[in-house]
Amino acid sequence: MLDIKALTFDVFGTVVDWRTSIIREGETFGRDKGLKIDWNAFALAWRGKYQPAMERVRAGDVPFTKLDVLHRQNLEEVLIEFGVDGLSEDDKQHLNDIWHRLQPWPDTVEGLNRLHRRFILATLSNGNVRLIVDMARNAGLPWDMVLGAEIAGHYKPQPEAYLNSAAVLDLAPSNCLMVAAHNSDLVAAAARGLRTAFVRRPGEYGPTQDFDQEAENDYDVVADDFLHLAAQLGC
Amino acid sequence: MLDIKALTFDVFGTVVDWRTSIIREGETFGRDKGLKIDWNAFALAWRGKYQPAMERVRAGDVPFTKLDVLHRQNLEEVLIEFGVDGLSEDDKQHLNDIWHRLQPWPDTVEGLNRLHRRFILATLSNGNVRLIVDMARNAGLPWDMVLGAEIAGHYKPQPEAYLNSAAVLDLAPSNCLMVAAHNSDLVAAAARGLRTAFVRRPGEYGPTQDFDQEAENDYDVVADDFLHLAAQLGC
Repeated sequence: MLDIKALTFDVFGTVVDWRTSIIREGETFGRDKGLKIDWNAFALAWRGKYQPAMERVRAGDVPFTKLDVLHRQNLEEVLIEFGVDGLSEDDKQHLNDIWHRLQPWPDTVEGLNRLHRRFILATLSNGNVRLIVDMARNAGLPWDMVLGAEIAGHYKPQPEAYLNSAAVLDLAPSNCLMVAAHNSDLVAAAARGLRTAFVRRPGEYGPTQDFDQEAENDYDVVADDFLHLAAQLGC
Repeated sequence: MLDIKALTFDVFGTVVDWRTSIIREGETFGRDKGLKIDWNAFALAWRGKYQPAMERVRAGDVPFTKLDVLHRQNLEEVLIEFGVDGLSEDDKQHLNDIWHRLQPWPDTVEGLNRLHRRFILATLSNGNVRLIVDMARNAGLPWDMVLGAEIAGHYKPQPEAYLNSAAVLDLAPSNCLMVAAHNSDLVAAAARGLRTAFVRRPGEYGPTQDFDQEAENDYDVVADDFLHLAAQLGC
């Protein structure tokens, strides 16, 4: 039987829809600036640099660096690749801060509020604290605590990210349910003793996404969205 | 002019009334167990061991230890001093967890909710994360983030506690307003560049308290309670 005290959440893709959020803000920004950009391609290219940037930190090539800084370094590269020139510092900061303003999936806020009545809710994201705090204030996400990479000093899927989060909550890993739309995250969490919940977000990368469509392992819970997750957990 | 983005709060005494909370729970517990104890004296004795216990950590005599553990060690001593014998492990855990269930001052919840509309609200307490999270869930305190001793690995008034909290929020210390009912906390925060707000809690230690009755330095804000603080900050 599960003895869950806290739910720990992956955020990008699981809680918020980063792709369409970037498209929406990008289109508005592009109109203002007279830019002709395929913002879907821009969002995917920017996100495509996410894992390689963190991998340099995980490998020890660079010291731990907040995701805001990695996002900004990646943005500079994507702007060059998309032939965008001459943006001001304020413009670049505005674009980088889109990650602080990502919008939740339609079921997210109601689902979290239902889950919050019974469980401690913490983020266990690679996003830095200020990014997650700003996002929560903007979108109304009822986190009890922001944990994950910046607090642990290690990016997922490194073990320290999961183990530190359970330790800060003063819980055994088996009292924590890791919630994610990504099989790799759940495999890493399970390897450290956390319980696992796969939530389907099949359109995270757009209609042609052909990975993470289904739970690929025997997780403790599999859910279609956060309302379905809440129902299965008795909330 | 102040350019405040986040308010960082001392918690014990400033946000919650630890003394009467311990008295109230202690009296109920004592009736159930048939104990004859002066719970006001018990609360003050328990709290009296707080600074000496942290001082052993600050001095490096013991490694960083969560406040829950220090509270428990102190509880064992106080129980002996008050002649209480034979409590079960569950009983002792129940008493130690009173700190997780401390009640807010009458103005706290409304004041924090007003301040929350405009400012990031973080705890900057010596309480460990789980203690502060449980307290917030129990009392309805709208923290965006739990910071302070456990996250910094240093107990206030060590500089790291203040500087780490600002850094995790990605703010300059001067963009953070430290809110406390204790002059010593504000002096230490100001020395690290934080802005300061003194909130009067003259009865924290009971009717005979003769210290921290008034702001003893030139703080940025002085308030009678959190509603008065909110009003002065335009909330």
